[in-house]
Amino acid sequence: MQHVDTLIYAGWVIPVVPENVVYEQHAIAIQDGKIVAILPSSEAVRHYAGRITYRLPSHVLIPGLINTHTHAAMSLLRGFADDLPLQRWLQERIWPAEQACVDADFVADGTRLAIAEMLRSGITCFNDMYFFPDVVGEVAAAAGIRACLGLILIDFPTSWAANAEEYLQKGLEVHKQFHGHPLIRTAIAPHAPYTVSDAPLQAAVKLSEQLDIPIHMHIHETQEEVEAAVAETGERPLARLARLGVLNSRLMAVHMTQLQNDEIRLLARQQVKVVHCPESNLKLASGFCPVSKLSRVGITTALGTDGAASNDDLDILGEMRTAALLAKGLSRDASSIAAAEALRMATLNGAKALGIDYLTGSLEAGKAADITAIDMSHIETQPIHNPLSQIVYAVGRDKVTDVWIAGKHLLKGRALTSLDIHDIQAKTHLWRVRIENVLNDEAPAEKRDEAEDDSMVVPATEAAAEVPSAHLAETEADIDPSIDVAELDAKPTPDADAND
Amino acid sequence: MQHVDTLIYAGWVIPVVPENVVYEQHAIAIQDGKIVAILPSSEAVRHYAGRITYRLPSHVLIPGLINTHTHAAMSLLRGFADDLPLQRWLQERIWPAEQACVDADFVADGTRLAIAEMLRSGITCFNDMYFFPDVVGEVAAAAGIRACLGLILIDFPTSWAANAEEYLQKGLEVHKQFHGHPLIRTAIAPHAPYTVSDAPLQAAVKLSEQLDIPIHMHIHETQEEVEAAVAETGERPLARLARLGVLNSRLMAVHMTQLQNDEIRLLARQQVKVVHCPESNLKLASGFCPVSKLSRVGITTALGTDGAASNDDLDILGEMRTAALLAKGLSRDASSIAAAEALRMATLNGAKALGIDYLTGSLEAGKAADITAIDMSHIETQPIHNPLSQIVYAVGRDKVTDVWIAGKHLLKGRALTSLDIHDIQAKTHLWRVRIENVLNDEAPAEKRDEAEDDSMVVPATEAAAEVPSAHLAETEADIDPSIDVAELDAKPTPDADAND
Repeated sequence: MQHVDTLIYAGWVIPVVPENVVYEQHAIAIQDGKIVAILPSSEAVRHYAGRITYRLPSHVLIPGLINTHTHAAMSLLRGFADDLPLQRWLQERIWPAEQACVDADFVADGTRLAIAEMLRSGITCFNDMYFFPDVVGEVAAAAGIRACLGLILIDFPTSWAANAEEYLQKGLEVHKQFHGHPLIRTAIAPHAPYTVSDAPLQAAVKLSEQLDIPIHMHIHETQEEVEAAVAETGERPLARLARLGVLNSRLMAVHMTQLQNDEIRLLARQQVKVVHCPESNLKLASGFCPVSKLSRVGITTALGTDGAASNDDLDILGEMRTAALLAKGLSRDASSIAAAEALRMATLNGAKALGIDYLTGSLEAGKAADITAIDMSHIETQPIHNPLSQIVYAVGRDKVTDVWIAGKHLLKGRALTSLDIHDIQAKTHLWRVRIENVLNDEAPAEKRDEAEDDSMVVPATEAAAEVPSAHLAETEADIDPSIDVAELDAKPTPDADAND
Repeated sequence: MQHVDTLIYAGWVIPVVPENVVYEQHAIAIQDGKIVAILPSSEAVRHYAGRITYRLPSHVLIPGLINTHTHAAMSLLRGFADDLPLQRWLQERIWPAEQACVDADFVADGTRLAIAEMLRSGITCFNDMYFFPDVVGEVAAAAGIRACLGLILIDFPTSWAANAEEYLQKGLEVHKQFHGHPLIRTAIAPHAPYTVSDAPLQAAVKLSEQLDIPIHMHIHETQEEVEAAVAETGERPLARLARLGVLNSRLMAVHMTQLQNDEIRLLARQQVKVVHCPESNLKLASGFCPVSKLSRVGITTALGTDGAASNDDLDILGEMRTAALLAKGLSRDASSIAAAEALRMATLNGAKALGIDYLTGSLEAGKAADITAIDMSHIETQPIHNPLSQIVYAVGRDKVTDVWIAGKHLLKGRALTSLDIHDIQAKTHLWRVRIENVLNDEAPAEKRDEAEDDSMVVPATEAAAEVPSAHLAETEADIDPSIDVAELDAKPTPDADAND
């Protein structure tokens, strides 16, 4: 009888490695933050005694989910700007709000809100890109979640740094600060091809090699971005990045909605990792990443939520489902991104992209005990013909009850053990008021009117509430019989054929 | 001071009519199952006294959601067959299971499971299409939910009826049984163009006119369906339906992923209602319904989940979000299907399609008190910059706490008041065992092997669980560097240009 720190008995265990397998009535034994064994419950009873033992007969255990692209602090801007395309969304709403509000406190409070949401969604590791990565690292370490800090690099000055030299210098300091930390890693994070010029990009590649860390970058997010680059330089952004040495096995290329076949071949050859953010790409109408095709030629594809301002949640279970559904629809093949593959994208592939698959991403003896428990007993997931299918297609993140990271029990019956949820709520409320006030104060008169028009919240009088039923006829605001259907086809059609 | 049955104070009320409006700090007064007033809380305090009063300061009240296309009883087949295209999904998995299991008990128990899930998802009305509609009606009436029973009509014999005459005759009896019921309506429901021949279709149109009830039909669900009809008859299914008089203002045309511009003009002219089931269409790789285009030419578009076997949930909040995101992605326009329009599709437009918008679909004085309360206090929906945006883009159905239908409190703090959830759970479990046994017993030997291969559940030994880390290298089953990218383009590309 071997004594271990923690012994978890579960109805099912989906280890991800080996793939496409569900263990029924199994237990996981944990010692010193690591998995020491996964074995049938009937054997676990005879071989292991847990100092703490959990019995979860109606739960399935999966590897902790990995959010391979986010801007955690932007959770404070959730729902702040909707139904706008990327460039207007950035230029008219997000960048002004960020310029007015982003400082170390914003990042600390926003990141804490995001981590609380991610833990409650079964996420045990996130790959961040934002300003004040030192603050992100401190908040993540204190909360006990794994994080990869994006050492942000961008051509224009922000409250974090004034120029490329300072971004790189401060990034290097952040890397040193967390070097050797058991939970915190870093990646050099040039924002995007259209916001970082050649010299700092080359410096980023060099830094990535010297420090042995990944590169984390938005690439080919929209057709407009690619067209603008071609118009200006005659070169597609990926070609420029190839020329500058950015395309290598350390690169996490995020979004990638615009890919030609020769570019896909190049990515495969260079072992570039692709991070797919399906819901953000849909919401901003950015385009479609051809994940099923990328996966079939052997490119590692992981999943990201992007920031909450463009999603509007940090829910990798949801992205997994959206990725699987969207790949089927676009490829016209219902077998594209089957359940097991979707789960691998959300776990092991994220770990591979981050270079930490030796440590996490699957439930295997020797790996860290990064585990998410999902309650399958509610009617929304009944009957259970196939637990793996339920996880991908039927489970909502509210069914996540428990999360362990490196063996630490950070979500316990849906309660956070390392974060003060009331404090997070209070600070979030203060930021909402501050963001809205700052924008209203700083906006010029004309802008202010627009902002008011944007607001859906109107003071209602009793008279307005008691609208006569005749008003019904006026609600079909979209009806315009004078519009001819064919006129609606004027816009360019989506390049969906990229996906098979 | 006026006394009313129920008075609900809420943080926000989104009435849907008028559109794009959020009332802050308002109350709804309910008498005899109807809304008598919606007014500012400060005035409600002075004018109304509720026999029961609810204070929901952190909740938003929206009209009860309408699921305008489902096969409720198929919830017993949730997760039973995944990652398969429509025809294989139907022919290899769903139809054999249905043939072996569907009877009045299956329909009663499956429908009860579905209603429990729908009430917990904020749905107050569903438009059903399945066998034993009499049983669906009895279960729905007992649960207190609004339902439109599909009087199913299909060319082949089932346990419900042997031939067209019997389907029509039994449908008429079901209609009579529920005529005048406050919650239950009926629609004649010919399954699909490819399963119902001309004579019964014409009889259905006649019945719809005589009884003044809608027609509910799957139409143009897949490209294959349209191509097969053209190959066989030279005519697209919509052209045949037009010829037979099916295309009129009573028709709820479900799916509609294959639409040419002249067909869209015809639908607009004939005032056909279109029911969009985005998640089912994605999961079965059926194609894309061009909802933003349909909406812009004035066609009423509503939302359906389809059955849980192809979704795998009955979650209209989720469909609303998927519809909004997918429309933006496909039309390459992030303003397509904005939040207010998505909410209208999920409420008022469903009521219009069913011909009951005089009764429900919006929160207005005089309409039935069909109300869904959503708790916005959790961190997943914080901060609240815009409640309408949060409802569409950030809220999960687990945040639905209370549901009233015709003033009856059917979901109370997430507990069902009219259904026994333990009984539903127990019966669902029995059906799971029975479905699997029946299929295993009836399958021929070869089939049985296949069924075993399908099963993801493998008995794992301790040895298998302790996989050496070298095994990792083998998990990338998809890697095949010999595949050339261009070969993956062989399949026809999606006809996504239909959506703008």
